Amino acid sequence: MNDKYVPVRAEHINPFLSASVNVFRTMLDCELTRGQVFVKGTVQPSHHISGIIGLSGKAAGIVVLSLSREVALRATEQLTQERPTEINTDVVDAIGELANMIAGSAKAQLAQYEMSISLPSVIIGHNHTVSFPKEAKPIAIPFDCKWGSVCVEVGLCELSA
Amino acid sequence: MNDKYVPVRAEHINPFLSASVNVFRTMLDCELTRGQVFVKGTVQPSHHISGIIGLSGKAAGIVVLSLSREVALRATEQLTQERPTEINTDVVDAIGELANMIAGSAKAQLAQYEMSISLPSVIIGHNHTVSFPKEAKPIAIPFDCKWGSVCVEVGLCELSA
Repeated sequence: MNDKYVPVRAEHINPFLSASVNVFRTMLDCELTRGQVFVKGTVQPSHHISGIIGLSGKAAGIVVLSLSREVALRATEQLTQERPTEINTDVVDAIGELANMIAGSAKAQLAQYEMSISLPSVIIGHNHTVSFPKEAKPIAIPFDCKWGSVCVEVGLCELSA
Repeated sequence: MNDKYVPVRAEHINPFLSASVNVFRTMLDCELTRGQVFVKGTVQPSHHISGIIGLSGKAAGIVVLSLSREVALRATEQLTQERPTEINTDVVDAIGELANMIAGSAKAQLAQYEMSISLPSVIIGHNHTVSFPKEAKPIAIPFDCKWGSVCVEVGLCELSA
């Protein structure tokens, strides 16, 4: 099915950027400062923990919210009012839910693609890498915040005419 | 959105099982022998490389095809007619495509859910773990084949009435 898809235009990445800033601000009381957006190679390291959401419809792809360990622990504390001491199931659920909110908010701004979103999966572990298919030309949006590093990666293709 | 979903019935996991066996047989000339199906905890190790596909529609979830390094290299050789010496972009694309075919085949057998599938993402690395949200109660289907170990993990929920 992949050959029917072409990468979306760069401006369609902006909804993911604003969604990330808004979700961190409203849910976590945390301001994100954006770094330089870059095209992500297929095999590059992400941070320690990543929430992944699949998008499908007239466009298809994935969104990855990748966080350092410290950001993940602090974000979970903010959401649950309890400070986790390690990456436990509360952290997994919190990161999955944040990824879900970012994808859901961006999807609402891209209504023309009539996308629906999958349940989140969460990847934990040093040295993991998340790779996208060639067609998706994933865009990485690195952010800094008061707790450390965050990266939002979006690989999205639309159905070609 | 997650609270609108309830786990699918166990028999709806069978299409993923038969899809895995069929894709390995027809695409890779490789027979899978099924082990004991089990409910996967939220934080359990998978194999070295995993292809992840998001599903969404009247049911939503993810499918993970997780392979040992040797199985991934041999499967890629079978698809490309070239033997990779390491986990490179050919292997990433091959594993993503296999996951795509398994999800696509299972989706066709679950037409009542009108699901569409996301582009694949591929996770590489020792000690990575793939976690599912609590709602999804993921089912793991372990397989053996002539090249080593394979596991197909499915977390799928349907919209509750």
